[in-house]
Amino acid sequence: MKINSKTNLVKTSQADPFSNVWHDVDQVVKFKENSGLKILGVGYTIYLGSEFEAEMLVQAAQVVYAAHQHGMISVLWLYPRGTAVKDEKDPHLIAGATGVGACLGTDFAKVNYPEKEGVDSAEAFKEAIKAAGRTKVICAGGASDEVDDFLKKLHDQIHISGAMGSATGRNIPQKPLDEAIHMCNAIYAVTIEDATVEEALRIYKGK
Amino acid sequence: MKINSKTNLVKTSQADPFSNVWHDVDQVVKFKENSGLKILGVGYTIYLGSEFEAEMLVQAAQVVYAAHQHGMISVLWLYPRGTAVKDEKDPHLIAGATGVGACLGTDFAKVNYPEKEGVDSAEAFKEAIKAAGRTKVICAGGASDEVDDFLKKLHDQIHISGAMGSATGRNIPQKPLDEAIHMCNAIYAVTIEDATVEEALRIYKGK
Amino acid sequence: MKINSKTNLVKTSQADPFSNVWHDVDQVVKFKENSGLKILGVGYTIYLGSEFEAEMLVQAAQVVYAAHQHGMISVLWLYPRGTAVKDEKDPHLIAGATGVGACLGTDFAKVNYPEKEGVDSAEAFKEAIKAAGRTKVICAGGASDEVDDFLKKLHDQIHISGAMGSATGRNIPQKPLDEAIHMCNAIYAVTIEDATVEEALRIYKGK
Amino acid sequence: MKINSKTNLVKTSQADPFSNVWHDVDQVVKFKENSGLKILGVGYTIYLGSEFEAEMLVQAAQVVYAAHQHGMISVLWLYPRGTAVKDEKDPHLIAGATGVGACLGTDFAKVNYPEKEGVDSAEAFKEAIKAAGRTKVICAGGASDEVDDFLKKLHDQIHISGAMGSATGRNIPQKPLDEAIHMCNAIYAVTIEDATVEEALRIYKGK
Amino acid sequence: MKINSKTNLVKTSQADPFSNVWHDVDQVVKFKENSGLKILGVGYTIYLGSEFEAEMLVQAAQVVYAAHQHGMISVLWLYPRGTAVKDEKDPHLIAGATGVGACLGTDFAKVNYPEKEGVDSAEAFKEAIKAAGRTKVICAGGASDEVDDFLKKLHDQIHISGAMGSATGRNIPQKPLDEAIHMCNAIYAVTIEDATVEEALRIYKGK
Repeated sequence: MKINSKTNLVKTSQADPFSNVWHDVDQVVKFKENSGLKILGVGYTIYLGSEFEAEMLVQAAQVVYAAHQHGMISVLWLYPRGTAVKDEKDPHLIAGATGVGACLGTDFAKVNYPEKEGVDSAEAFKEAIKAAGRTKVICAGGASDEVDDFLKKLHDQIHISGAMGSATGRNIPQKPLDEAIHMCNAIYAVTIEDATVEEALRIYKGK
Repeated sequence: MKINSKTNLVKTSQADPFSNVWHDVDQVVKFKENSGLKILGVGYTIYLGSEFEAEMLVQAAQVVYAAHQHGMISVLWLYPRGTAVKDEKDPHLIAGATGVGACLGTDFAKVNYPEKEGVDSAEAFKEAIKAAGRTKVICAGGASDEVDDFLKKLHDQIHISGAMGSATGRNIPQKPLDEAIHMCNAIYAVTIEDATVEEALRIYKGK
Repeated sequence: MKINSKTNLVKTSQADPFSNVWHDVDQVVKFKENSGLKILGVGYTIYLGSEFEAEMLVQAAQVVYAAHQHGMISVLWLYPRGTAVKDEKDPHLIAGATGVGACLGTDFAKVNYPEKEGVDSAEAFKEAIKAAGRTKVICAGGASDEVDDFLKKLHDQIHISGAMGSATGRNIPQKPLDEAIHMCNAIYAVTIEDATVEEALRIYKGK
Repeated sequence: MKINSKTNLVKTSQADPFSNVWHDVDQVVKFKENSGLKILGVGYTIYLGSEFEAEMLVQAAQVVYAAHQHGMISVLWLYPRGTAVKDEKDPHLIAGATGVGACLGTDFAKVNYPEKEGVDSAEAFKEAIKAAGRTKVICAGGASDEVDDFLKKLHDQIHISGAMGSATGRNIPQKPLDEAIHMCNAIYAVTIEDATVEEALRIYKGK
Repeated sequence: MKINSKTNLVKTSQADPFSNVWHDVDQVVKFKENSGLKILGVGYTIYLGSEFEAEMLVQAAQVVYAAHQHGMISVLWLYPRGTAVKDEKDPHLIAGATGVGACLGTDFAKVNYPEKEGVDSAEAFKEAIKAAGRTKVICAGGASDEVDDFLKKLHDQIHISGAMGSATGRNIPQKPLDEAIHMCNAIYAVTIEDATVEEALRIYKGK
């Protein structure tokens, strides 16, 4: 259950981003008990490099702490963003972000896949996996993509870089229902069953 | 019971709008019990796109949560407003606003009726109804209007777009008492009894 | 007992005014019990139109609420002031201020007497009395004045406009003790005993 | 025990001064009990005219209140300072400062000794003593001074203006130990035993 | 256990530094009990001269207080930094910083080693040791250095200036494991066993 959020109306050129916590973990626990939903963890976004970073770091630390007190896992979205951040996809910066995740003691850190001219992303991403220590790293899925490109990238992230999975949004719900289900199965195959890109693509195509 | 408000003295050109919560829901509940008034729900305004959005989103989330804990419904006024908002009546923006209402888990979202050059408002408003999911949408009544125009617009909102009702202010109390009562009856007829615009107009005229 | 205040050192041209609450109502109640003083109510100033209005509105709402919980009355000083306020004595603006007092549920609203070129203040002030609804309006006494002018103005406020009284400061303590006592008696006569201006003036002159 | 403080690194030209409370009075009381130290009161500095005045006034009010609840006295350092303050030593401004001390209900108000071209400080300071009402006024000792000048000024403050004492810092600890002890004795003689300046000077010289 | 931190993305030219407390001391104590780790104390960084100094001073005071309540020691990182600070290594400024540490009642104050053209750092640093009173001073290790230079500087800090030790980071973990262990042994010898620089260097070289 993601417990902070914001709109995208105020741009970084106007003010640095701040995503405030909407509900505390006690409310999540109470909701979990009352609803019967199987809520396994809580998620929280930090914009590192924002002028509001100090407030978000504290909220994140408290969310991780409280989640663990209640036997839930924590996932932190760690995105460098703000006036001070010139290149959000810089490999070293992303490694710094997963390092912050480790300092905060989160179970999972979700970051963007690095991109840099002349650099192999899958190799560069290894630095972020290493900087995360015992924190597991998962990759933001990014904008909608060609399926084969997407599955290839996913395979690289997991089987070359060492990511533990991906947090895929737009590449699933922006597809028709049937394709979306096949897409989920293909992602599962790559992530959990060590399928090759070709095998996963066959699953996606329903063969 | 509306529990936040502000004056209109400070304009957006001077500072982005912030409407702070005056009373918490526990105080509303205590007041309800002591006064014997049949208070069914609480209302709160968020100015999406304001630099104070982060604070208002948290207050809104807590108001919705607390209202539900006490068996009351919640109504959120969701108005995009602030330096970052160029067109408050943009249909997609209003759909975004009802989507925020859904994320906050409110029972009702009150928004402005979209207006865009060359676009049919009643059709465009369907996007906002859809984005609201299980949250019901009601339309702000807007400035005082010709009665037939008002009733036609109301009928469109409910029977074309799918709104659940309207929150009409100035079009009722800015009329003499007799007319105001007829106006209420006409609105009720359109909203609850599926009356046509013509039938409603007859009710308003006291025939 | 007035429970917020500020110095006048920082001018509006430097920063909008903010008068912060010094003591909560529970402390007033405890002080009342321990001191044996007959404290009947609490007072709080709001600068409407200040960029800090949002904070003062919340404090005022809470002060009114807590006063009523403890069986005391509330008095709100409602002064439009700040960069956004061009004319603090505008009759409609003052009517807006007493309307805010009504929204906050205060027993008494203290406002300035309206002043506008070509407008009769006593007549114009009726709008503020009406906008206050069940909230009673009292007038700020203003700067030291000629006694007959002061009593005439007071009589108008109460017997033409419908104010419930005045909150007179400088026109009493800036006089020698004897004159000050006569002034109090004169004000009492106008306010409570429906004395005419002439009768009140005689009281002031000790006749 | 002084419970707020700040460094002097950020100058008023960069930002108005704010001295935040480090420990609440409950912690002082607990420390007093555990340490066995005979702590008689608590001290707090307010910079009147600072843009952070509103926050410091509240903290001061709460410190005075809590000190009295625990049977301790309060001392407020009342220094006009900030962008809005053109002349910190203006006699009327200092009288305003002791008046704020009276409003806050403090036992002692520590202020600077007034200085104004063509004005006798000892006479001018009487206004501050009067404005303080039942609050006792003590004078800041100021920068290191010639001993006879210092004692003369002290004598004037107490025996002409009506101050209850002085809060002497640099004029004691910036002297060698022997001289410092004599200085304390001389100050004591002027303040408590009504010694003349000449007698006090003899005490300082160890005769 | 260090309980506040920040990234270095926002530079002082953009905004003064603020390092917010992530966990309170009660959480550290609970973690200590549950984990079985032998946590001896808590650490906190203050940036003196930052526009956020007021907030950090309060957090530091509370951290020191709470640590002592729980029988743990406190270490404060006291770094002058911000727009107002022209020379972070100025000897008098660093002495002011250790003086703040003493005021806050911390057991240990960690500061930078002073550097000033034409001044002997080891001698100049004595002022900081003296200003710290009963608070013990430890030196920040600084950037990676030649080993003999590092050990010489460490020996000076402890045996000339009077520091109680050093907080060495980069000069240990940025070396291969074997060298790092020898480095620790060399530092231990200088700090605890009063070894000479030559003896320590032999230890580092494994002889």
